[in-house]
Amino acid sequence: MCRTCGCDDHDHPHPHQRRISLETDLLAKNERIAEAVRARLEHDRVVALNLIGTPGAGKTTLLEHTIRALSPTPMSVIEGDQATDHDARRIAATGCTVTQVNTGTGCHLDASMIERGLAAVRPRAGSLLFIENVGNLVCPALFDLGERAKVVTMSITEGEDKPLKYPHIFRAASVLVLTKVDLAPHVDVDPARCIEHARKINPELRVFPVAAPRGHGMAEWIGWLRSELEAMP
Amino acid sequence: MCRTCGCDDHDHPHPHQRRISLETDLLAKNERIAEAVRARLEHDRVVALNLIGTPGAGKTTLLEHTIRALSPTPMSVIEGDQATDHDARRIAATGCTVTQVNTGTGCHLDASMIERGLAAVRPRAGSLLFIENVGNLVCPALFDLGERAKVVTMSITEGEDKPLKYPHIFRAASVLVLTKVDLAPHVDVDPARCIEHARKINPELRVFPVAAPRGHGMAEWIGWLRSELEAMP
Repeated sequence: MCRTCGCDDHDHPHPHQRRISLETDLLAKNERIAEAVRARLEHDRVVALNLIGTPGAGKTTLLEHTIRALSPTPMSVIEGDQATDHDARRIAATGCTVTQVNTGTGCHLDASMIERGLAAVRPRAGSLLFIENVGNLVCPALFDLGERAKVVTMSITEGEDKPLKYPHIFRAASVLVLTKVDLAPHVDVDPARCIEHARKINPELRVFPVAAPRGHGMAEWIGWLRSELEAMP
Repeated sequence: MCRTCGCDDHDHPHPHQRRISLETDLLAKNERIAEAVRARLEHDRVVALNLIGTPGAGKTTLLEHTIRALSPTPMSVIEGDQATDHDARRIAATGCTVTQVNTGTGCHLDASMIERGLAAVRPRAGSLLFIENVGNLVCPALFDLGERAKVVTMSITEGEDKPLKYPHIFRAASVLVLTKVDLAPHVDVDPARCIEHARKINPELRVFPVAAPRGHGMAEWIGWLRSELEAMP
């Protein structure tokens, strides 16, 4: 008899095994929803980018300046935070369509939240969809949201060694936007060393060093976004 | 018959309930170990502080300067990171006893890691133990490590609204160390507004604004650490 729940199944998993298999189930369920989201976005010709970085990496500021630079390209934004609609209000002030997802104690967005977000923003064909994940360099790396690419955003003030210490997101991402590079002299951090560390983890990483409010590096980032839109079949 | 595993127990939890109860079990198990850690630290007269903040909040830099200022007070450090022993090496360079815990894809330290860490650093009676958590403002808020107090560290470059957007850690912490305040003029962030937001979430929060490498605010922080050591029975 199984000691876990008293049933007769001798192959009943032990509690520890059950926990692992439930975690796997959770990720597998997310994968299934993410694939459905991806298929829908491809069908609708929407380029979705999943922005991941710590609180204060500059994700919302990057989006504000990106949206203003790309306008009138059709765009929409799904904003993730534990609490408040501050970021959604900042995006709405640019005139862009936006919805806010609050996760409470949750540490990441999952694909089902994107399904609901899509119902709210209804992205147009041939548009860009930015998903700003919960501020966290760690957990969002594990969750596929059906995006075209993960974009890791990291502020130069975070220090040169962060790609080595938190490698998973740098491995999962296709693009690194290195923000606040104008602050490098004040914090004694070398952007070149930071990029070298990121490429050590992921040699394929496309890197855009920017200082969004000053416009530094923005032409290259905007150019890449346009090329992604144009590459859509 | 239960549709989950085929046994005859009609009260068998549904898969979703089971996941929630397993998460609760996981936290309950952590609480039990944390209480044992807390009892042992109190018995050994060790003041343990759990430092929590994003990657790049300045936790290790704060510790380097704190250790040098407090020397020869007996101290030890448990360092948490996903990968590398960079931080442990920085701490070791100050002459302080240190051990590194790597969590892989894990997003926080748990109490069992502290049990193992204690076996490695063996803190002396009447000493300070600093636990530097994995760089993450979100998940470590949920896990008791048996510490005397949680210390949230936040860099002024992260922006004024972070306590409102990530309230859980500001509620769980007793102390906020607001780092890199010398950068405030360069990032157009008002430290007073940031503190106001943090106190809105937690009116009891003790706040130390610092710029550790310049020594700014360090006397107050060091003074508080000394008073914690002296208050020990």
